[in-house]
Amino acid sequence: MHDTLRLIHSRRSIRTFSDRPVSDDTLLTLKEATLRAPTAGNMALYSIIEVKDQSKKERLALLCDDQPMIAKAPVVWVFLADMQKWVNYFEESGAVKRAQAAGLAAFRSPGLGDIHLCLQDAIIAAQNAVIAAEALGLGSCYIGDVIENFEDLSDLLCLKRFTIPAAMLILGYPKQTASVKQSPRCPVDSIFMTDGYEELHLDALEQAYHEHESSRRKVGSLPYGNEGTLADYYYLRKHSSAFMEEMNRSTAVMFERWVNG
Amino acid sequence: MHDTLRLIHSRRSIRTFSDRPVSDDTLLTLKEATLRAPTAGNMALYSIIEVKDQSKKERLALLCDDQPMIAKAPVVWVFLADMQKWVNYFEESGAVKRAQAAGLAAFRSPGLGDIHLCLQDAIIAAQNAVIAAEALGLGSCYIGDVIENFEDLSDLLCLKRFTIPAAMLILGYPKQTASVKQSPRCPVDSIFMTDGYEELHLDALEQAYHEHESSRRKVGSLPYGNEGTLADYYYLRKHSSAFMEEMNRSTAVMFERWVNG
Repeated sequence: MHDTLRLIHSRRSIRTFSDRPVSDDTLLTLKEATLRAPTAGNMALYSIIEVKDQSKKERLALLCDDQPMIAKAPVVWVFLADMQKWVNYFEESGAVKRAQAAGLAAFRSPGLGDIHLCLQDAIIAAQNAVIAAEALGLGSCYIGDVIENFEDLSDLLCLKRFTIPAAMLILGYPKQTASVKQSPRCPVDSIFMTDGYEELHLDALEQAYHEHESSRRKVGSLPYGNEGTLADYYYLRKHSSAFMEEMNRSTAVMFERWVNG
Repeated sequence: MHDTLRLIHSRRSIRTFSDRPVSDDTLLTLKEATLRAPTAGNMALYSIIEVKDQSKKERLALLCDDQPMIAKAPVVWVFLADMQKWVNYFEESGAVKRAQAAGLAAFRSPGLGDIHLCLQDAIIAAQNAVIAAEALGLGSCYIGDVIENFEDLSDLLCLKRFTIPAAMLILGYPKQTASVKQSPRCPVDSIFMTDGYEELHLDALEQAYHEHESSRRKVGSLPYGNEGTLADYYYLRKHSSAFMEEMNRSTAVMFERWVNG
């Protein structure tokens, strides 16, 4: 089984893909593996939209912080946290009315706890897909920007009240097979803590992200010239960016619609 | 690489564990594999608390809907969505002040979008851990109930404002190696949709959960005697349960503290 550990260690995110199409057979194998992900109470609190229509892919690429690689990817999957199907099932099957008639339960409209649980289900399935894809020779990349522009995304993908984007993957055969150096990771002891949260402060954080900073300096992309640090880089490029502002606005809207309609 | 697909297909959630301890070497291998999970912008927006202290495990078991299996599990990991470390890094490194002085950005307090992105990171890492554990012969089970009783959990694990539970795993060597029938899954075409959300209604839902209902009927755990359906079962046992109410209350509190302090 150490093949699987090797695979986990050699995986890296792939953003450009070869022209080789992903066959229907391979896609089906990938889908079947994806579905074997664990799910809360075995309810499958998620759905996956495969975006195939080229004009929709282009629109989606625009909505996700204008990243053309999305429109070029052979396979585009949007993972939804999905409580809508269960709301439908409970109401249309008569389960709600039976419970009321028997005095067992009043209807409970899904709230933030349902969102959390459904997000878990959907994201667990997404990472199951990433590993299964890797085993099939397919590369993948998460698109965090799927949580931006919720209103437009909702229109584009015909989302219903109790469905929200949880994660997004682009997939395909990697363009380059030549090994590319992998992204650094934090040391184990900066991520894993024992028995309680251990708040990290400056020295520990600089150590935790030491390798990140080294590799960032090599590509020369720090702000303030050579005076900048990794913290400056992430603060300016990520934390205080327009797309991060938009993620916050958009997520507030999607949660609000779910909870209050 | 088809070993990995077989592993994904044979995985099932393990709730009881043998007495065989998980060695430090194996745990380290598991931790290193877990960290190779993809993470947004390579920021590692998560932390993992390993709960080892037996009295804390017992308290945690109580807080997670009173499930003694948690206290008995050899390894207990709580995955946190963690923006706290980056807030500390930005402030303590002077990145916030430098950006303000240069007129580049005002401080943005993390909001719901950060929660969503951090949850993605943490849950992606959790499922990476599940697969890596499986490769090492370890079984695992998610504990969805970690999102209940947030105030008490926060005290128990010394959580800070920008840290919230994202997922939880119990791990160990499976008690029974005898093959146990796996849980059913929905058919591929009830989970995967093309180009837009396809709302499922009663007939389609009954088909989607047909195998779930068959296996449920065999163990005779439907409500209303034989008159009950799978929808009744899930409506009463899950959707309108006290623990689901608590998940909703608790998640609202954890999101509120993150956003408004």
